[in-house]
Amino acid sequence: MKTSLLKIGAARSSIGRSHSLWTGQSWRMMASSSTGGFRVEQDTFGDLQVPNEKYYGAQTLRSVMNFPIGDRASERMPMPVIKAFGVLKKAAAEVNKEFGLDPKVADAISQAADEVIDGSLYEDHFPLVIWQTGSGTQSNMNTNEVIANRAIEIMGGELGSKKPVHPNDHVNKSQSSNDTYPTAMHIAVAVELQNVLVPGLRKLHDALDAKAQEYADIIKIGRTHTQDATPLTLGQEFSGYVTQVKFAIDRIEATLPRLYMLAAGGTAVGTGLNTRIGFAEKVADKVSQITGLPFVTAPNKFEALAAHDSMVEVSGALNVIACSIMKIANDLRFLASGPRCGLGELSLPENEPGSSIMPGKVNPTQCEAITMVAAQVMGNHVAVTVGGSNGHFELNVFKPMMVANVLRSIRLLGDASVAFTDKCVTGIEANRDRIDTLLHESLMLVTALNPHIGYDAAAKIAKTAHKNGTTLKEEAIKLGYLNEEQFKQWVKPEDMLGPK
Amino acid sequence: MKTSLLKIGAARSSIGRSHSLWTGQSWRMMASSSTGGFRVEQDTFGDLQVPNEKYYGAQTLRSVMNFPIGDRASERMPMPVIKAFGVLKKAAAEVNKEFGLDPKVADAISQAADEVIDGSLYEDHFPLVIWQTGSGTQSNMNTNEVIANRAIEIMGGELGSKKPVHPNDHVNKSQSSNDTYPTAMHIAVAVELQNVLVPGLRKLHDALDAKAQEYADIIKIGRTHTQDATPLTLGQEFSGYVTQVKFAIDRIEATLPRLYMLAAGGTAVGTGLNTRIGFAEKVADKVSQITGLPFVTAPNKFEALAAHDSMVEVSGALNVIACSIMKIANDLRFLASGPRCGLGELSLPENEPGSSIMPGKVNPTQCEAITMVAAQVMGNHVAVTVGGSNGHFELNVFKPMMVANVLRSIRLLGDASVAFTDKCVTGIEANRDRIDTLLHESLMLVTALNPHIGYDAAAKIAKTAHKNGTTLKEEAIKLGYLNEEQFKQWVKPEDMLGPK
Amino acid sequence: MKTSLLKIGAARSSIGRSHSLWTGQSWRMMASSSTGGFRVEQDTFGDLQVPNEKYYGAQTLRSVMNFPIGDRASERMPMPVIKAFGVLKKAAAEVNKEFGLDPKVADAISQAADEVIDGSLYEDHFPLVIWQTGSGTQSNMNTNEVIANRAIEIMGGELGSKKPVHPNDHVNKSQSSNDTYPTAMHIAVAVELQNVLVPGLRKLHDALDAKAQEYADIIKIGRTHTQDATPLTLGQEFSGYVTQVKFAIDRIEATLPRLYMLAAGGTAVGTGLNTRIGFAEKVADKVSQITGLPFVTAPNKFEALAAHDSMVEVSGALNVIACSIMKIANDLRFLASGPRCGLGELSLPENEPGSSIMPGKVNPTQCEAITMVAAQVMGNHVAVTVGGSNGHFELNVFKPMMVANVLRSIRLLGDASVAFTDKCVTGIEANRDRIDTLLHESLMLVTALNPHIGYDAAAKIAKTAHKNGTTLKEEAIKLGYLNEEQFKQWVKPEDMLGPK
Amino acid sequence: MKTSLLKIGAARSSIGRSHSLWTGQSWRMMASSSTGGFRVEQDTFGDLQVPNEKYYGAQTLRSVMNFPIGDRASERMPMPVIKAFGVLKKAAAEVNKEFGLDPKVADAISQAADEVIDGSLYEDHFPLVIWQTGSGTQSNMNTNEVIANRAIEIMGGELGSKKPVHPNDHVNKSQSSNDTYPTAMHIAVAVELQNVLVPGLRKLHDALDAKAQEYADIIKIGRTHTQDATPLTLGQEFSGYVTQVKFAIDRIEATLPRLYMLAAGGTAVGTGLNTRIGFAEKVADKVSQITGLPFVTAPNKFEALAAHDSMVEVSGALNVIACSIMKIANDLRFLASGPRCGLGELSLPENEPGSSIMPGKVNPTQCEAITMVAAQVMGNHVAVTVGGSNGHFELNVFKPMMVANVLRSIRLLGDASVAFTDKCVTGIEANRDRIDTLLHESLMLVTALNPHIGYDAAAKIAKTAHKNGTTLKEEAIKLGYLNEEQFKQWVKPEDMLGPK
Repeated sequence: MKTSLLKIGAARSSIGRSHSLWTGQSWRMMASSSTGGFRVEQDTFGDLQVPNEKYYGAQTLRSVMNFPIGDRASERMPMPVIKAFGVLKKAAAEVNKEFGLDPKVADAISQAADEVIDGSLYEDHFPLVIWQTGSGTQSNMNTNEVIANRAIEIMGGELGSKKPVHPNDHVNKSQSSNDTYPTAMHIAVAVELQNVLVPGLRKLHDALDAKAQEYADIIKIGRTHTQDATPLTLGQEFSGYVTQVKFAIDRIEATLPRLYMLAAGGTAVGTGLNTRIGFAEKVADKVSQITGLPFVTAPNKFEALAAHDSMVEVSGALNVIACSIMKIANDLRFLASGPRCGLGELSLPENEPGSSIMPGKVNPTQCEAITMVAAQVMGNHVAVTVGGSNGHFELNVFKPMMVANVLRSIRLLGDASVAFTDKCVTGIEANRDRIDTLLHESLMLVTALNPHIGYDAAAKIAKTAHKNGTTLKEEAIKLGYLNEEQFKQWVKPEDMLGPK
Repeated sequence: MKTSLLKIGAARSSIGRSHSLWTGQSWRMMASSSTGGFRVEQDTFGDLQVPNEKYYGAQTLRSVMNFPIGDRASERMPMPVIKAFGVLKKAAAEVNKEFGLDPKVADAISQAADEVIDGSLYEDHFPLVIWQTGSGTQSNMNTNEVIANRAIEIMGGELGSKKPVHPNDHVNKSQSSNDTYPTAMHIAVAVELQNVLVPGLRKLHDALDAKAQEYADIIKIGRTHTQDATPLTLGQEFSGYVTQVKFAIDRIEATLPRLYMLAAGGTAVGTGLNTRIGFAEKVADKVSQITGLPFVTAPNKFEALAAHDSMVEVSGALNVIACSIMKIANDLRFLASGPRCGLGELSLPENEPGSSIMPGKVNPTQCEAITMVAAQVMGNHVAVTVGGSNGHFELNVFKPMMVANVLRSIRLLGDASVAFTDKCVTGIEANRDRIDTLLHESLMLVTALNPHIGYDAAAKIAKTAHKNGTTLKEEAIKLGYLNEEQFKQWVKPEDMLGPK
Repeated sequence: MKTSLLKIGAARSSIGRSHSLWTGQSWRMMASSSTGGFRVEQDTFGDLQVPNEKYYGAQTLRSVMNFPIGDRASERMPMPVIKAFGVLKKAAAEVNKEFGLDPKVADAISQAADEVIDGSLYEDHFPLVIWQTGSGTQSNMNTNEVIANRAIEIMGGELGSKKPVHPNDHVNKSQSSNDTYPTAMHIAVAVELQNVLVPGLRKLHDALDAKAQEYADIIKIGRTHTQDATPLTLGQEFSGYVTQVKFAIDRIEATLPRLYMLAAGGTAVGTGLNTRIGFAEKVADKVSQITGLPFVTAPNKFEALAAHDSMVEVSGALNVIACSIMKIANDLRFLASGPRCGLGELSLPENEPGSSIMPGKVNPTQCEAITMVAAQVMGNHVAVTVGGSNGHFELNVFKPMMVANVLRSIRLLGDASVAFTDKCVTGIEANRDRIDTLLHESLMLVTALNPHIGYDAAAKIAKTAHKNGTTLKEEAIKLGYLNEEQFKQWVKPEDMLGPK
Repeated sequence: MKTSLLKIGAARSSIGRSHSLWTGQSWRMMASSSTGGFRVEQDTFGDLQVPNEKYYGAQTLRSVMNFPIGDRASERMPMPVIKAFGVLKKAAAEVNKEFGLDPKVADAISQAADEVIDGSLYEDHFPLVIWQTGSGTQSNMNTNEVIANRAIEIMGGELGSKKPVHPNDHVNKSQSSNDTYPTAMHIAVAVELQNVLVPGLRKLHDALDAKAQEYADIIKIGRTHTQDATPLTLGQEFSGYVTQVKFAIDRIEATLPRLYMLAAGGTAVGTGLNTRIGFAEKVADKVSQITGLPFVTAPNKFEALAAHDSMVEVSGALNVIACSIMKIANDLRFLASGPRCGLGELSLPENEPGSSIMPGKVNPTQCEAITMVAAQVMGNHVAVTVGGSNGHFELNVFKPMMVANVLRSIRLLGDASVAFTDKCVTGIEANRDRIDTLLHESLMLVTALNPHIGYDAAAKIAKTAHKNGTTLKEEAIKLGYLNEEQFKQWVKPEDMLGPK
């Protein structure tokens, strides 16, 4: 390590190969490969060759060229954002029609938008990544270009001609990137919460609740500070997890009022310049109709463009859920630790071979996947927080990064909840014998003797039994505090499970 | 840097001095200094000498001895936690009286608890720091010992005698550290939110709102991407901040339902062992009466002991507020940058000399203090998150650390909001001339020409003016797109402030 | 929002569609689609149908089935990990040959491993995602299966027959997932640092350094607290950025000693059970030869399996770099703010149209992309930290999540540095006139008068000029402290640039 | 929760009391209480009454008045910063003497600085908190005022007269807050690392290492994925912890080169205006002499003022250490879980009673304190990161917050390491019988049979024994794979501890 890395010049490892090979997806110049020839498009910066089979245009292509950052496959603008753009563009077209946009153009836009909404255009026509301008302008333009060209096609026009449907004048009418991108953020996050996370949590909730019912009569040793404590039922223990997941859903719900507020209608800086009075409200209504969610127009558009506190807030709820998940999954793997040298109170389902070297080993892999997800969500939350704190003046320009992290957290938590439920929770088995053995070996049942012989005598029994490796009953009788009959009558775990 | 630090032995810097001198507060053995002699107290681990003038006892002293971690002054268990313990102990004593506790004992406990609640015993009798057992058991015992001895004193007994008031049997009756500490956490946080943070935010909100009204007619250039954009009023700009602070309060409110749930009644592992049916509900009622806040008993005590998701949730709301504050304070200092070489649209009040080397320099120090607070709150949030994710089985043992961070965030945000309002926001002055000059120099007013001469012509004017360092009007006329009269008529910033 | 989300049953939004459509990639059962028919493979859990054209086998397929978490395209096990596995398997095969493995088998493995190293098998044969078992066992087995089958093919055998090359007995010989996965983590991260991040930073360093040289003679106003301060050269200002990037590389270098330590040879729990003495050292040597990087065998294999402190350490260095990048990119966009209403000292290159609504607007989009990257890296770092803190006993099971975040941070920082350099830094232009104008308007040049007329008189001049909106010279003369000649002689910005 | 918190006016809880009572330290106006009368001091903002017994002056007092943020006791500027300021002021005075400062004045400053260095003036004369101007100017001026007045006193002058020692002209000579505060940050952190953290870690390292030696012959079951795995010795397990702590020290060391670089000599913006050539180097030398640490002058002062990447870097190393500590302490408490219903392999020392309700309960309280510290350090790191990313132009103004977090992390980790060592690690006892019992019950010893009877047969034995709850030996013999003699010969845990 003598030479400074700064000074190392041409020298590369023999594995060197090209950067692109080693790091994954090569950043092929998209303009340079096409199966169907090219058309020439231009923006204010000049001409560009766009593959004929693509609906996107010059501005999209320019972003591809200017931002070769990260693996293209894994860094793409998330599909829910693009779908949400489809929803917004459809809503705007319909409202613009009310305000005088040529109905044929409006209808073609609306129809093209449906294909954005259903996801069928995503794979081939939305090549942009998160790492672009921080306002998401380029993804707004990508959507405008794709919808315009598809609408042109529907109306029998020529791709790239901007006639009879212009990406800016028609598809983006009464809009600006500055209000459309935040609108798409809110729609995408709300829909994903509704469609992915809440159903996943509800499923997990129900499976844990079923276990809590099933285990209502299994009395087990409690553990505090990782040390033996007074007993509870396994059902009670699971009821804590059930409550955590129930509250998880309540926590999401508590953030929704501000998530349901849409920036649409604010245009460039929040004033609504170039829109018509009523446009904002009508668009929010249309979006509500399309999505079935109670969106409203944001009461203050300046806040809605310049800050994304609502994203930070939703992310904060996801962060709590990550903590809950971490707790639950940790408990399950520790309670199922063993099979011989751990706690062994639970058995988790065996889903795959656990070890290539140790025959018969089974690991709590679903717990591992979901706790990794939890850690990721905590990290994503910090990224969202940093982005959210860095808005300046009339615009926050960390938008794509923020929404991508929130959406990823939602998806991972939602999907992992489903897999965790299906492949782990529903298959959990309680090892009743083991649980019962541990319960009766525990010294903490001595707590039940307090009212009968006092704390000090009870402590003496417990400490003597601990020292001698004997049972409470043995030492209690040997020390002369009580007889066997009394022990049986007084030390009843089933009487230690609630208030009296 | 050749020698490993691991191997460095006795060698120390010449500034070496003793560890305690350099690092702050020495960790004096508290037992070893007393102005009034000592009494001998014992716990199950042996005898300890307690200073006669102290109400605390052996368990408190043992914690002082076992955890010499950090600067004692700055790491103390926060006063709001101790006050909240006072509230709980008072409530429990009154409920225990209903359930049969000797009324004289109950009343003495209640009276002693009042002195804990009013803070007068904190300085001298609650020496423990955050860094102790993760259940907060030692602070619970500290409270029990102090209240017991003060109650003994009230009843004419002898300190340390545990008669007629026993710290465990009477003060801690029907309680366990495991349910009392979380109860105190929730009470302390709820009261501090109510008494410190919300009033601070409300004050900030009102001051910003007054400015928004005051500046309703000042038209200024907007800035997106830090670049000149279309105009808005300074009042509109401030209305965004107002909304952020309004939502800050809404966000806190959204977390309260789960914060108002109290663990009391769960005792050791959540079962409520050793309590009476109805104890939990009655205690929550009493705490509500004492505090005036709508506490309820937690619907699931297992969750309330084993997880502190509610703390993570509240901390998440504080984290959003930190983002809002960072945005607002950053904007203010940039808008006030200058006085000659910055944006210079605002002047912030001058509160102190800014530089010992540069005469006449004034700095936005309140913005700096509050943005440092914002960064701290974001960090505290991660500490709370990590603690919240690490509960095991029936108990989370990161309690003191978690509540200390939440309370610190609340206090800092609340206090800083007040200082920021008083010393900065209310004294802001808008530099109307400067704002007007910038507005009319801007090229983005060209946007108003779009409907009249088209986007392309407008762009040509703007780019030419930019290139030549001229005004829009000059170039528009020179390029022949319009005449002076038309320019005046079409380019009116006051018409660019809203939808039509 | 009256109904609890928990209770909402079948109701879904009208946009409902299927989960998979909305959220992206459908999780097609890979076993159910094949262009070339299937072969039946089995593991200890039963039979599975594997597409004939795939080299992977039953264990890989089982992981695909068990972990349908997240978008498959964006959540894949990163290619650098798979390539690193190729390097390790090749090295192990060659060492195993020395220890007696059939040379034909060893050579076939080595040859197959080359195809893993060059990335050509990644797309089709490594379908697994990060969210799997936390030990990465399944990706180790994926590699073993692919190399075994490809080696079988090379040797003329039948895919899936495990003869003459067995995935466990031959490809995984003397290895365990527990030591191979961490070995692959270290190799992948070290190679990516070397091939992606360091070259990217070096490029950025050199471009900034060139600007620092170019701007060595441009004197400009300094800004502290966002307020005007004493002057410096633009070259000096850039030299601060240069130093930050230089130190960035030094910081990476400082973490390498521990990153270059390989776990290989530790097998299941770190003891090296089932390996031969010398295996660990020889494998590290081979890996060094293949990669050209100075890997060594880890001095303690227990640490190398149970903790991934080294990943947290590298991530910490990346986190510092993110801070540096954030500072530099923020400065550039603020210095380039305008063009008319900002600081306007710099002009950044125009790469794309900035606004669909504001003609002629150009935005600092490269600054935005790279600051979003910086925020992401800070978040990734927290995910890595949480994972790193959660190892238990002999194994940390957050491995795939940890390495994926570190690799993503490396790639994003490296790529963004290149784009930022090419599309922004190299094209920066200093607006000398604007810089000079601001410099001479500044009141902080008054500092130069301190030695001549005293701090108090200087302060009076500055404050009067500030109040009256005049220049220092005017007020200095009017106040009678000096004459014009003296002002010219004493107030020379070029004399304020260094010590004397 | 119907009424918005925003709207709640005067209403307060009945516990209402005054804000100051509930939240702790009242913010007494320091100017309004004095035992010895007042002197009038003035700054450019007017007159202020300073208590006669205080060495500080007007600027300090003004900061007290302007920043009533947080509990004064716990939010104070950390003592190590003030001591470091003492070191710097002493060094500067001595160098200024070389450059011509009146030797009597220089010597008086040097003598007064000694009293700052030894901490004796901290309690009464340095009242400022962290939350002040982000450059730390006010703490620099606090130091200048205190040293000036104490030096005046030494020289027989009148407090507050600024004669013969002026706080700015003499104590602050050739300095600016902008370079002194960062210099104090680096000195304070380096000294605390040296005096507090490294000794604490070294002590922990040695104690763990002694245990690793002591336990070298205790063979135990390994655990991966929390599940039983192949055996290792308890000494090997502890050797992993030893290595983590050893690397912790290496990690700190790796950050020192940049920490040892001092900003002194940069003055206002980094140019060194108003200093003499050589001043910077000489001051660094003096500081080295005083502290015994190898400080150098920073190669680039612009970076040293505008960024605090070095703080983020050191904090990153502390963050890794927090991860290591979390791992180690978690392992110890899980290995010591029980005493009857956990793993029970270790016994941790009993330091205090564990429960007021459960007689005889002993908890791993030192593990709890140190893991809470670990979580705090992770949070502090994020605060430092956010502060570090937010520098603008020539100055980062998050300085006090950043250094306070780094110092707190150092102190907490250092102190907690000592307590953890003394009160936990050195007293650990291995429960050899329990360890041996678990080892021989484990099914993973079956791994030793692989070479003799093959993986499949071994797996069958393990699975059958697991199903029947029998031993490996029983089932191996019953299934006919081997006889008792062979089992004894082949299954030897002591042969499974290393490569062969």
